[in-house]
Amino acid sequence: MTIAPVCPAPLMHHETVQMAHGAGGRLSQALMQRIFMPHLHNVFLDQLDDQAKLELQPGRVAFTTDTYVVSPVFFPGGNIGELAVNGTVNDLAVGGATPLYLSAGFVLEEGFALAELETIVISMAEAARKAGVMIVTGDTKVVGKGQCDKIFINTSGIGLIREGVSLSCRNLQPGDTIILSGTVGDHGMAIMTSREGLSFQSRITSDSAPLNGMITAMLDVNPQLHAMRDPTRGGVAATLNELAVSSSVGIEISEAAIPVKAEVRGACELLGIDPLHVANEGKLLLAVAAEDAAKVLAIIRSFEVGRDAAIIGHVVHDHPGMVVMRTPFGSRRIIDLPLGEQLPRIC
Amino acid sequence: MTIAPVCPAPLMHHETVQMAHGAGGRLSQALMQRIFMPHLHNVFLDQLDDQAKLELQPGRVAFTTDTYVVSPVFFPGGNIGELAVNGTVNDLAVGGATPLYLSAGFVLEEGFALAELETIVISMAEAARKAGVMIVTGDTKVVGKGQCDKIFINTSGIGLIREGVSLSCRNLQPGDTIILSGTVGDHGMAIMTSREGLSFQSRITSDSAPLNGMITAMLDVNPQLHAMRDPTRGGVAATLNELAVSSSVGIEISEAAIPVKAEVRGACELLGIDPLHVANEGKLLLAVAAEDAAKVLAIIRSFEVGRDAAIIGHVVHDHPGMVVMRTPFGSRRIIDLPLGEQLPRIC
Repeated sequence: MTIAPVCPAPLMHHETVQMAHGAGGRLSQALMQRIFMPHLHNVFLDQLDDQAKLELQPGRVAFTTDTYVVSPVFFPGGNIGELAVNGTVNDLAVGGATPLYLSAGFVLEEGFALAELETIVISMAEAARKAGVMIVTGDTKVVGKGQCDKIFINTSGIGLIREGVSLSCRNLQPGDTIILSGTVGDHGMAIMTSREGLSFQSRITSDSAPLNGMITAMLDVNPQLHAMRDPTRGGVAATLNELAVSSSVGIEISEAAIPVKAEVRGACELLGIDPLHVANEGKLLLAVAAEDAAKVLAIIRSFEVGRDAAIIGHVVHDHPGMVVMRTPFGSRRIIDLPLGEQLPRIC
Repeated sequence: MTIAPVCPAPLMHHETVQMAHGAGGRLSQALMQRIFMPHLHNVFLDQLDDQAKLELQPGRVAFTTDTYVVSPVFFPGGNIGELAVNGTVNDLAVGGATPLYLSAGFVLEEGFALAELETIVISMAEAARKAGVMIVTGDTKVVGKGQCDKIFINTSGIGLIREGVSLSCRNLQPGDTIILSGTVGDHGMAIMTSREGLSFQSRITSDSAPLNGMITAMLDVNPQLHAMRDPTRGGVAATLNELAVSSSVGIEISEAAIPVKAEVRGACELLGIDPLHVANEGKLLLAVAAEDAAKVLAIIRSFEVGRDAAIIGHVVHDHPGMVVMRTPFGSRRIIDLPLGEQLPRIC
């Protein structure tokens, strides 16, 4: 018997995501070959096996995961794809790891425009290139109309932890200097104002950016970095509280020292939101031995993503587990975790 | 100033998922401490850092990801949590890797019952224990009512590839024997019949199970295994086609040799579905050198999950990229990929 070989991927005559694109059949293959592979292909992904086979240098490995459900999917300064790459790159980098490999898991809503999906995939490819990582394995599921909101993306990541680096939220010591790498609240307020249809004189754009280059530069000079976190959900307030609780120390910050863009401050006032509770996607919070603070600050400021960096406070013996802010009027107030939900689906 | 330290996780006075459970604040912490940590805690997850820091033995590393969107969330023979662990464990194992570490990324719909979430988390913990893996890092997002369907779970996994193992869908050689480790279609038809409210004399239950123990036993005797896949979405038909196309070989199978449970066959006939297109979650398809086939089959059959294993066909020079099935009447038909969507949200 002779049968002519069939083409494994027929033309994809659709402008929107169909249920069959997630069924593991011909249309799944077509989606892979028309939308994902042209932009993301690399030596690992090209294997099309159910798992990527990687060669890692010996050493400790960092492993992290995040699912992105941001709404809207496209926002001033970025989109869900770029955010999904940068966010996971940063979660590896703040652990002292060199980010290497990412996975990408998509949940698509039936009817989502394939052109928009492709734009998102292109952003992921560009973000990965910029951060020096590869997307090596992936998965796509499709759910019916109304069963998810357009697109959710999970990225998990693997990185190699630099030797001699020991960063942990438990490492803070009284006397440490707290450094913030730039203005607070840009990402969250970009999402909120675009969602609410607010407009200001200058448009607020997300700060979504990979931080691994800047972190590598810092670690290269080997300062006494005790902890490093990216203050995303819950903002600077949540991250400082986590650090204070985990290390059983107090943190004191100065309101006047915290960099906030005028338009972000204005939007926060209008919406009744504390900028310290707003998510950032391209910022670092560091606890550094006091004698190394100036050196670290100079390195951060030498990067575009760190040009507004500032020393915002220090670690104290008093009030362990608590963050206290000195206002310009000399009073002090407790910076607590946000209890409620001010900013849903920010990342 | 002295301020009494606050409790980081207040009582969680809710019976359902609230938007604030995903906001990175106090209720996020409460969710973590009341639902996730009691069941999943381990030396890595307990760190509560943004990334797990792992020690891996030197060697090649397998990395995989899958998002689970199965509906209904609870089905005969399992639930989404167990499926999410077993599926990713199996994706690592079929690559010749020993599964070690998993991540878990949750998307929860506002209003989803916390008691159901806890049941799912308990199933994940049990499945992880059974498969010998640890869930070492995680993430939880909450979206509004109607913005996702109850719960989606992404699991990504890391495993260490055994030395000397080279499994790939490109490795099939003419003459290889094709082995299937058990009955086809159990998982998919368990979902479909529970969704459609169909009842049969014997209830169809999912075959969801970890396969890494059985795979390890096979690799220990070092047979000439050329390819190994778990025929999930798209079923045995899709997997055989992928193997045939990737290796540019033909595959011939015998319909009479394919194990199908009577109740699954009945349900498939009723719904007009080819059992070869139905997803499995605890089955293996193998291409093995003919001289090793009997030995491999015996090992598979010695495991409970492999007791119905059978040789279902072989690899041929003819019709490369194509799968052909011999019917009991002596005719032959092409086993194609499913084009459309018969079975949405099966995993």
